Amino acid sequence: MEEEFPGSNDLRSRETLLASGGRRAAGGVEDAARGIGAGAAVLAFDVGGTDIKSAVFDADGTALGLRRTPTPPLGDDPAAALIEELARLSEELRAQHPLVVPAALGFVVPGIVDADAGIGVFASNLGWRDAPLRDLAAERLKLPIAFDHDVRSASWAEHRLGGARAHDDVVVLIIGTGIAGAILVGGEPYTAGGYAGEIGHSPIADGPECACGARGCLEAIASAGAIARRYAAETGTVPDGARDVIARAAAGDAVAARIWDDALDALTMSLAQLTAMFAPQAIVIGGGLSRAGGALFDELRARLAARLSFHRMPELLPAELEGDAGLLGAALRARELA
Amino acid sequence: MEEEFPGSNDLRSRETLLASGGRRAAGGVEDAARGIGAGAAVLAFDVGGTDIKSAVFDADGTALGLRRTPTPPLGDDPAAALIEELARLSEELRAQHPLVVPAALGFVVPGIVDADAGIGVFASNLGWRDAPLRDLAAERLKLPIAFDHDVRSASWAEHRLGGARAHDDVVVLIIGTGIAGAILVGGEPYTAGGYAGEIGHSPIADGPECACGARGCLEAIASAGAIARRYAAETGTVPDGARDVIARAAAGDAVAARIWDDALDALTMSLAQLTAMFAPQAIVIGGGLSRAGGALFDELRARLAARLSFHRMPELLPAELEGDAGLLGAALRARELA
Repeated sequence: MEEEFPGSNDLRSRETLLASGGRRAAGGVEDAARGIGAGAAVLAFDVGGTDIKSAVFDADGTALGLRRTPTPPLGDDPAAALIEELARLSEELRAQHPLVVPAALGFVVPGIVDADAGIGVFASNLGWRDAPLRDLAAERLKLPIAFDHDVRSASWAEHRLGGARAHDDVVVLIIGTGIAGAILVGGEPYTAGGYAGEIGHSPIADGPECACGARGCLEAIASAGAIARRYAAETGTVPDGARDVIARAAAGDAVAARIWDDALDALTMSLAQLTAMFAPQAIVIGGGLSRAGGALFDELRARLAARLSFHRMPELLPAELEGDAGLLGAALRARELA
Repeated sequence: MEEEFPGSNDLRSRETLLASGGRRAAGGVEDAARGIGAGAAVLAFDVGGTDIKSAVFDADGTALGLRRTPTPPLGDDPAAALIEELARLSEELRAQHPLVVPAALGFVVPGIVDADAGIGVFASNLGWRDAPLRDLAAERLKLPIAFDHDVRSASWAEHRLGGARAHDDVVVLIIGTGIAGAILVGGEPYTAGGYAGEIGHSPIADGPECACGARGCLEAIASAGAIARRYAAETGTVPDGARDVIARAAAGDAVAARIWDDALDALTMSLAQLTAMFAPQAIVIGGGLSRAGGALFDELRARLAARLSFHRMPELLPAELEGDAGLLGAALRARELA
């Protein structure tokens, strides 16, 4: 799962954390990467457009060899090239941890994913269309293969291990460069053939234009990327990410304050729509913006409560697993096959 | 299920249809009230704020004694009073059809309904709060009792017998005086403790005020009731329902055209949100507005396609069961217990 917000608590910082005792600096949450519990050893991969996170999880559920490697150029046959890269990484991880014998392999990818059919329907950054990724992996890697969508896998991991543990009907929003989402029904991702959960590309107004080609998408106003971009466009000053815009708003910058207010209003509108239509018990928010300060959760709770009438107010909770959630989901899915 | 749009193809006209051979004048759809198929005999009730529809379904699935009777004043103990009325109607139906021995009874009610728990959580027109309606009915009526929400039951009947037969992930919208909705996941209503599916009370803008207390609800702009009300407010002329406003728009009335256009835009926005978040295979639209002419489905298809980008376009389909869907759902739910 991609997470490009500056300061993201991802594996780069996680490796430092692991070396320093395995606890997060902020929040005191137990290190997620060591938290999948006892079970079969499995290989797990979270494939993104920029890099691939991988690890082998041992029988205690500890992630060994946790690494982030650049996604290689995938050429004319991106599906086959990706599977070759997974094979190479698998061999590397197994060579480094010869006593851990994985019983299954899980991998997750972005884009439109039909997990039931094992097919990567479409991924703009990776290039495949209707690629039978699960079958290709099974043939090449000679292991039972679990295959899923990165954000749905991450959301399910939040349900199993993280911020959504207490609830079965949950929406997860990851707000970073873009806005990704997933809907859990009865504790399992609701997929709709891979098309569900595109909350970042649900319209909340008639504008502005979104990179996806539609207009008024939530992502075009309320993502960390949009907040920084809009500030740069209006002021000519390139901020150090959304966090900087929020800090400028707090310091009295009127343009920053308006852009941040617009983002909060757009998020509130989207949360109100989710509440009316889907009535989740909780909405879990992760990604860079959820750690950006500015009392995001307090602001959203107050604004959402003011928008609702008879509706059931959902709990608004921070994600706990953050950048590793996709990898943990992949490992847990592989466990189901082992 | 309430359906107050003028010209609704409801039981009042249905009784005429039954007398005249059991086929609908429009559409050639086989009469829904005779269509639940072979199985146990059951009693079924669709309770609304204004009236109660009831029938006994025989082993062929034919509705006998189909009637619509006024909902009596329910007094200080509305739950007990309703169950007494259901008992009275049950005795009447059984006395009139002594050879049909019902094996179970199904009833559906409006409001917030926790069907799993058998509880009517809240119903503004009927007055109960957290009423254990299923248990009360079982005790008084001495039959296995199926209990559900009217619109979710109707939507499920559309899946079993009507316009949503071909799909398992479906949204049903009933657009009449208000806008009611339901979400089917894997062919079953998604409930969220009774709070899901309030698509009519999902915001699509920052205004106008809605009767529910929130603002910008879809229902406040796009329901048949809102269309007629807005036209009356702007022109001082009370139209003969939304159908009349649409006819005036077609005849060149600029105010009517703008109000109808606003309604179509609001509906399109809501359909786009449902498509992005939930990606149903089909969205089934029923209620008075769906029969109001003005090429509703063609307009919505074109506008929705123009709003989407990579999203999966849902089929937009007319509901087939219309005003009897709630009763048929109640009968089918009772069959599950018989």
